[in-house]
Amino acid sequence: MQAGLQALMEMLAEIRLLDSVTAVLQWDQETGMPPAAGGLRARQLAWLSRRSHDIYTSHAFFNLLEKLVDMESGSAHDDAASAEQRRLLYLAWRRWKRHNALGAELVSRIAEHESRTQQAWTHLRPRNDYSTFAPLLREMLDLKRREAEAISLGPTLYDSLLDAFEPGMTASQLERIFATLAARLVPLIARILGSSRYRDDDPFLPGPYAENTQEALCREVLVAMGLDMQASRLARSAHPFTIGINPRDVRLTTRFNPGDFRPAFFAAVHEGGHALYEQGLKLEPYGSPLEEAASMGLHESQSRVWENQVARGRPFWNWFLPRLRRAFPQRLDGIDLDTALRGVNRVQPGLIRVEADEVTYTLHIIMRFELERDLVNGRLDVDELPEAWNARSEFYLKLRPPDDRDGVMQDVHWAFGGFGYFPSYALGNIYAAALLDRARRDLPDLDNSLAEGRLTVLTQWLRRHVHSRGSRLFGADLVADLTGAVVSAEPYLDYLETKYSQIYVTS
Amino acid sequence: MQAGLQALMEMLAEIRLLDSVTAVLQWDQETGMPPAAGGLRARQLAWLSRRSHDIYTSHAFFNLLEKLVDMESGSAHDDAASAEQRRLLYLAWRRWKRHNALGAELVSRIAEHESRTQQAWTHLRPRNDYSTFAPLLREMLDLKRREAEAISLGPTLYDSLLDAFEPGMTASQLERIFATLAARLVPLIARILGSSRYRDDDPFLPGPYAENTQEALCREVLVAMGLDMQASRLARSAHPFTIGINPRDVRLTTRFNPGDFRPAFFAAVHEGGHALYEQGLKLEPYGSPLEEAASMGLHESQSRVWENQVARGRPFWNWFLPRLRRAFPQRLDGIDLDTALRGVNRVQPGLIRVEADEVTYTLHIIMRFELERDLVNGRLDVDELPEAWNARSEFYLKLRPPDDRDGVMQDVHWAFGGFGYFPSYALGNIYAAALLDRARRDLPDLDNSLAEGRLTVLTQWLRRHVHSRGSRLFGADLVADLTGAVVSAEPYLDYLETKYSQIYVTS
Repeated sequence: MQAGLQALMEMLAEIRLLDSVTAVLQWDQETGMPPAAGGLRARQLAWLSRRSHDIYTSHAFFNLLEKLVDMESGSAHDDAASAEQRRLLYLAWRRWKRHNALGAELVSRIAEHESRTQQAWTHLRPRNDYSTFAPLLREMLDLKRREAEAISLGPTLYDSLLDAFEPGMTASQLERIFATLAARLVPLIARILGSSRYRDDDPFLPGPYAENTQEALCREVLVAMGLDMQASRLARSAHPFTIGINPRDVRLTTRFNPGDFRPAFFAAVHEGGHALYEQGLKLEPYGSPLEEAASMGLHESQSRVWENQVARGRPFWNWFLPRLRRAFPQRLDGIDLDTALRGVNRVQPGLIRVEADEVTYTLHIIMRFELERDLVNGRLDVDELPEAWNARSEFYLKLRPPDDRDGVMQDVHWAFGGFGYFPSYALGNIYAAALLDRARRDLPDLDNSLAEGRLTVLTQWLRRHVHSRGSRLFGADLVADLTGAVVSAEPYLDYLETKYSQIYVTS
Repeated sequence: MQAGLQALMEMLAEIRLLDSVTAVLQWDQETGMPPAAGGLRARQLAWLSRRSHDIYTSHAFFNLLEKLVDMESGSAHDDAASAEQRRLLYLAWRRWKRHNALGAELVSRIAEHESRTQQAWTHLRPRNDYSTFAPLLREMLDLKRREAEAISLGPTLYDSLLDAFEPGMTASQLERIFATLAARLVPLIARILGSSRYRDDDPFLPGPYAENTQEALCREVLVAMGLDMQASRLARSAHPFTIGINPRDVRLTTRFNPGDFRPAFFAAVHEGGHALYEQGLKLEPYGSPLEEAASMGLHESQSRVWENQVARGRPFWNWFLPRLRRAFPQRLDGIDLDTALRGVNRVQPGLIRVEADEVTYTLHIIMRFELERDLVNGRLDVDELPEAWNARSEFYLKLRPPDDRDGVMQDVHWAFGGFGYFPSYALGNIYAAALLDRARRDLPDLDNSLAEGRLTVLTQWLRRHVHSRGSRLFGADLVADLTGAVVSAEPYLDYLETKYSQIYVTS
C-alpha cells in the first residue's frame, strides 16, 4: 500500500501545484492585470483547469486509486491503514468521483459559460438589465443541474452542488437551522429597531481619514492577530478577498474609503481571519487533501470570528480605541468606548448583503438559499426569480428593492455558477459562535487578553483546534467534535441577543 | 504539409501559453510575492519549464517535425514551402534541437538552481558575502557548462550559451567588435574628462521631486512614445525591468528616487522601448516562433534608442524641458536647454554598470564578457573571479571596487544563470545607432518631429521595420538587412564622438 499511496501523493502534489499557479493568476487578474489581457488570461486558466482535470481522469490515477480504495464508497482496502490514511484516501476518492462524473465537454462548457455570464453580469447589473441576463442564467442553471445529476451526491440536485462548498451538509439540515434563525432574528431586529435607545445616526465623523494611516492601522491589527507578514501581502482591490496560494504565500486585499475608516478596517480584519486559516494549514506533505480547509463555511467562520466577535466586541475596543484615536486625533478625539461600540455595531436593515450589519446579514443568506434551492431543484423558474426575490426581501427585511440592480442582480455568485455557495456565509456565523463558546471554556481569560491586545491567544487556540486539523473532519463535524453538540443556530442567536441587548437594552 | 504544420503550431501555442504563465509568475515574484514564498515559487517555475520541455521532447513533436524538416539542418522537406514557412520550421527545429540536447533532469536542476541562486544573491549581495555565494555560482557554472556541451552550437562552450540570447553571433565576432569599441572608447573618455569644458558637477538641484509627479511624467512620455496603456502596466521594483506576457499584456517597472527625477525617468523610457517592442510583436498566429523578438541585443537596441539616442538628445529636450519645468517649478525653473542636456549626459566613470553613462557603459560590458567567457570556457575559476573583476575594472574604468558588493556581485545575471547575456547590452547600443542612422534616412524630418513631441513617428518606423518582423531575421542580420552593411561598432562610435564633441568640444 505504501508505494501506491506515495505515487498517488505525487499526483496530488502536481495538482496542488497547478492549483497554486491558478491562484497566482487569479490574484494577478484582480490586482494587476492590464484590461486588454483578459482574453489570454482566460486561455491560461482554462489550460490549467483542463490539465488538472486530465490528471484526475487519467488511467494512471484510476489504476492507483483502484488498488487502494473501494471505488463505490472510497473506503480503504487495507485493514491496516491508519485513520489518517483512510481519511486521505477517502478525500482523494471524492475528488476523483467529482471529476470523473463530469465529461471533459461539460467541464469546459461550464468553465466557458461561467466566464461569459460573469462578464455579462458586470455590464448588465449597472444597467438593471435582468431580461438580457435571464437567458444566460437559465443556461447556467441547465449546466449546473447537469453537473449535479452527474455527481449525484445527495437526495436533491441542490445537495450535490452544496457538497462542493460544504461537504457533509444537506439542504434539509440547512432548512432546519435557517428556520430557527429566522424565527429569532426577525423579532430580535424588531426589538432593536423598537428600542427606546435605538439610534440610527452615525457617531463617527465623516473623513478625511488618510489612506496611508488607515493602511498602517490595518497592518498593525493584522500583525497583532498573528499574521506572518513575511508570508503574506496586503494589497488593494475593488472587492476585498483572500487567496491562499500556499501556507507560505497568502495574499489579502482591502479597499479604502477616505470618508470612513470602517470599510477598510473591517475588510482587513475579515480577510485577515481567512488568511490566518490559510497560513495555519500544514505545508507538508505537499498536496495532501488532509491539509486543506475543512469547508467554505468553516473558512467563513475564521473571518467572522475576527471581524464580528472579536473586532466588534468591547474587549478589543478597549485596546484598539486609543490607537484609533491617536491615528485620527482630529476626527475621533471625543469618541468614548460606548460610542465607538455603537458606531461599529449599527443595526440598520438594508437591501445590499455586503453592506449588511451582523444581525440582519443572515436574513440575506436565508432568502438566497431558498431561492437557489428552488431554482436548482426546478421549483422556481428564472422568469419568476425577480418577483420571488422581491417578495422574500419584503418578508425577511421588510424592504422591497426598487430595481433588479439592488435586488436579484446584486450578487455575482449565480453569474459564476456558485449555486450552493451562499449558505457558507450563514454557516460561518454559526460556526464562529460555537467555536468561540468553546474557546472561552478553554481560555477563561480570553476577554482580558483581547482587551490588552494579546490577540494571538485566540490565534493559537484556532491554530491548534481548527487550522492544523485541515480536512480531517468536514466543517460541521469539526465544530460538533469541538463543542460536543450537533451544529445548531442557538449559540449564534444567544451571542447576538446578549450583545445587542447590552447595546440597545432590547430585553 | 499543411496538416502537419497546423498540428505543430498547436503544440507551439501550448508552449507559448506555458511560457506566458511563467512570465506572470516571474512578474509576481519581482513585484508582489511575499519573501517566504520563494521555495514554492521555484517549484511552480520548475514544473512549467519541465512541462514545456516535455512537449519539445515528446514523440509527438519529433514525429511532426521529422515529417516537415531535415532533422540535421532544420531545412524544410517541401520545396513548395514559402520563405515564411521555411523560417518558421527552422526556428521550431532550433528549439527542438536545444531542448532535445538537454535531459529532463538537467533542465529541472538548472531551473531550480537558478531560482535558488537568484534568491541567495538578493540576500548575499547587501552583506558583501561572496564566499557564501561562490559555491552556488560554481554549481551554476557546472550546470551551464553541461548545458553548453549538450547543445554544442559553436566552437566554444561560451558560443553555445551566447546563441540563446544572440543567435547567429559568435564570441570571436564579439571580440573583434569589442576590440574596436575599447580602442576608441577609452581615448574618447580620456578626451572628455580632459576637456577644458568638462565639469563633473550636477546642474540639477537635488530633490525633493514628488514621486507621484515623477510617475505622471513617466506616464506622459510613455504615452507620447505610443505605448498602449490598456495593454500595459507601470509598477515599481528595485530593479526596473519589462516583461512581455503577450502583446496584449506587457508590464514594465521603474524605481523612484525622491532626490533625483532622472533614475525613474530614464528607466521608464528605457523599459518603455522594450515594452513597445513587445507590444509590436504580432499576437497571431499565437505561438508562432516568427512572432518573437529577433534577439536580446535587438531587444536592447529598442530600449537604448529611446533612452539614449532620443531621450538624451537635443530635439527631445526641446519638447520635454518645458514639461519637466512645469512639473517641478521650484527645482528647475532656471534650467536652460544646454544645461539640461549637460545634466542628462554627464560622463563620469563609476563602479556600477546600471548607473553608468552612455559613454562608459560599454566598457562595463566588455569586462563582463571577457570574464564570463573565461569562466564558461574553463580559463577562470570562481575563486579567482573577484580579483579578475577588480583588475579589469582598473584596466577599463581606472577604478578599483572597494568591495564585492559593488564589484563582482553587483549584477544578478550570473546568479540566474544568464552567462552570455551581457553582450546583448553592448550590441543594443551598436544596433540602436545603426538603426537610427537608417531611420534618419527614411525620415529626414525626424528631429523636428521629436522636437514637437511627435515621438510616434519613430515608433511607427520601428513597428514597421523592426517589431513587426519578429524573428524573420536574427538581430545582427536584421540590422544588416536594414542598413546594407555588416554590423560593426563604427556607427555607434561615430554617434558618441559627434554628440560628446558637441557637449564637451573634445576634438
